[in-house]
Amino acid sequence: MHRDQFLLPPGLVYLDGHSLGPLSHVADRRVRALLRSEWGAQLIRGWTESDWIALPQRVGEKIGRLIGAAPETTLCADSTSVNLYKVLAAALALRPGRTEIVSTSDNFPTDLYIAQGLIDQRAHGHALKLVEAADLAGAIDGNTAAVLLTHVNYKDATLLDMAGITAQAHRAGALAIWDLSHSTGVMPLRLEEWRVDFAVGCGYKYLNGGPGAPGYLMVATQHHANVTQPISGWMGHARPFAFDARYQPAPGVARYLAGTPPVLSMSALDASLDITLGEDIDTIRSASMALSDALIDNIARVCSDPELVLASPRDAALRGSHVSYRHPHGYAIVQALAQRGVIGDFRAPDLMRFGLNPLYNTSLDTECAAQALAEVLASRAWDRPEYLQRNRVT
Amino acid sequence: MHRDQFLLPPGLVYLDGHSLGPLSHVADRRVRALLRSEWGAQLIRGWTESDWIALPQRVGEKIGRLIGAAPETTLCADSTSVNLYKVLAAALALRPGRTEIVSTSDNFPTDLYIAQGLIDQRAHGHALKLVEAADLAGAIDGNTAAVLLTHVNYKDATLLDMAGITAQAHRAGALAIWDLSHSTGVMPLRLEEWRVDFAVGCGYKYLNGGPGAPGYLMVATQHHANVTQPISGWMGHARPFAFDARYQPAPGVARYLAGTPPVLSMSALDASLDITLGEDIDTIRSASMALSDALIDNIARVCSDPELVLASPRDAALRGSHVSYRHPHGYAIVQALAQRGVIGDFRAPDLMRFGLNPLYNTSLDTECAAQALAEVLASRAWDRPEYLQRNRVT
Repeated sequence: MHRDQFLLPPGLVYLDGHSLGPLSHVADRRVRALLRSEWGAQLIRGWTESDWIALPQRVGEKIGRLIGAAPETTLCADSTSVNLYKVLAAALALRPGRTEIVSTSDNFPTDLYIAQGLIDQRAHGHALKLVEAADLAGAIDGNTAAVLLTHVNYKDATLLDMAGITAQAHRAGALAIWDLSHSTGVMPLRLEEWRVDFAVGCGYKYLNGGPGAPGYLMVATQHHANVTQPISGWMGHARPFAFDARYQPAPGVARYLAGTPPVLSMSALDASLDITLGEDIDTIRSASMALSDALIDNIARVCSDPELVLASPRDAALRGSHVSYRHPHGYAIVQALAQRGVIGDFRAPDLMRFGLNPLYNTSLDTECAAQALAEVLASRAWDRPEYLQRNRVT
Repeated sequence: MHRDQFLLPPGLVYLDGHSLGPLSHVADRRVRALLRSEWGAQLIRGWTESDWIALPQRVGEKIGRLIGAAPETTLCADSTSVNLYKVLAAALALRPGRTEIVSTSDNFPTDLYIAQGLIDQRAHGHALKLVEAADLAGAIDGNTAAVLLTHVNYKDATLLDMAGITAQAHRAGALAIWDLSHSTGVMPLRLEEWRVDFAVGCGYKYLNGGPGAPGYLMVATQHHANVTQPISGWMGHARPFAFDARYQPAPGVARYLAGTPPVLSMSALDASLDITLGEDIDTIRSASMALSDALIDNIARVCSDPELVLASPRDAALRGSHVSYRHPHGYAIVQALAQRGVIGDFRAPDLMRFGLNPLYNTSLDTECAAQALAEVLASRAWDRPEYLQRNRVT
């Protein structure tokens, strides 16, 4: 719906926006202007004249609108991993008598790693309890400090019931922390209404913030005053420029800031966000569902390889904005598709993922991708040496 | 010595490179190329084709050469605050029986805040012992887990004896952590030879990495295998793209990575570093000392206000690369200087700082700055309403 606002190489079918969104014209212009007109011309004065200092709040508020968060509960800062460390530490501090963090065994690994690292650091006898998504209900109990979940599964795009699980966590006296990395920007979220306690997410996927764009976090208002986070850097101080020797946390969500924000990277995200915010998020979601349905339909129509299996839910209402297939030669197939100008990605051992962002993907993309996939499957190209496995970044 | 490699506004006397280094042509070109030729054209493939994934190591190695670190002990990552949290946590884990972190009461505040936050998080009875720099010798003892110091004081530029204090910490069985934010790039450092255990620093000051450029860290080789850091994100995993559910730290310093690196911001730093690395660091230091001496001499020659007091050591060998003066109307004077095109900065209550980076500052800068200061002092401009105090970023 806004493909002309992105610099996509002509002829490329880009179905990897769930890993890295494309460059937008507005981000390109913004960063160029930032270089010469702000950093180059204003130098240190850019912090006030271009208000770089308020970027974490300004970008945070934009993201807050996308996720239905209350005003002044969101920040753009650091990476998703670092942000998760901060909010998970705060959550554990808010539930001192409880020793378990409940998550799913197929949660995005860095979320689990961060929980493990925090548990080891605190050494207070906490444990990470991992279950299948279907078993979450039975796993949340009076010993659960926090439920830590990703809304859209990074592998198969399965949606979890954020409202329902959050309510269940609350009934057990636990807190709910949601990773929105594969959700924000492609579907409506209502974090305030669903009473989510904490959330984190990624700026470089559907928000098109650029490679390694900063992440974001949300802390519900009722938790602001009751707890601090452990990475208490100067940007989270009540008066960062008073240079007091003693840390005093800022009164609101700003206490979740730590160091100085990476202005170049955060500005690209800031700029690209306006494209998403300029469109109705329900319209985006409808278009996303239609596109992913179209991809599945087109693939079903033209691909007959019995080893190709849809890994995502068939019902669009149960899916995020990417579609996954399993195939024993998935890696080679993704490589062969790329040679045909169709960019998806691969997750070991056999998962192919195709992301659809209605801002720039079209139904023609789904037709081209399905046709290319049919050709690759028919050619059985996977024995060629150029398809040796390499690492890829999510 | 390389002024033509920076885009400094004509006529500006920029003496604030200790807060934010200027835009270099090479950083400008690099980020522009990154936008269209890498992010825009390669999209997700940029992680391998442009090797974004190795940026933390590549930029870290460049910084390692500047600070005399052993190979494969440095990384570019996160902010200085977050990096300090990681290495300080590792240091405490390496000295389990000891409960004190020794620092100076005038250390850069975020370093003290981070120590306080980590202590509160661990809740293992640690304490932060703050002393005057002159009293460090008596403060380090058998209960000291780590000595946490900044090499060049951010206020008055006083240098601490990194080799001597590190040796003293080691004699007491403690570890030495150094913040190099105001040192790296303007003087030779020999971290390996001085047996420094951990170091952190800032990319946006003398390294000219741009506003909020990522920080860096150094972990001495002998500590790599013995401890992990708590923010155990996926980029610090031994095999980030295997997507194991269980965290397994990377074998070397890479375990100090957490989330995905901010490629735009880190690339600007990467590019600018080549300017510093293209010059001999001893030559840079000699030029820095000559420039700061020249500034002091010129000010002494043309300024007669008895309230203007040099706050930095008079002996260049005892100073970093900025020069500080106290004046009861310091804030107004810095503002009035800026109106005359001389950019320094101010730290409450009365400190004016003037940074000198020989890469772009010249002896003419010191003459112009001294002359402008003399004019401002003679005009006694500080009662004007436009000089009301505002916040500034270091």
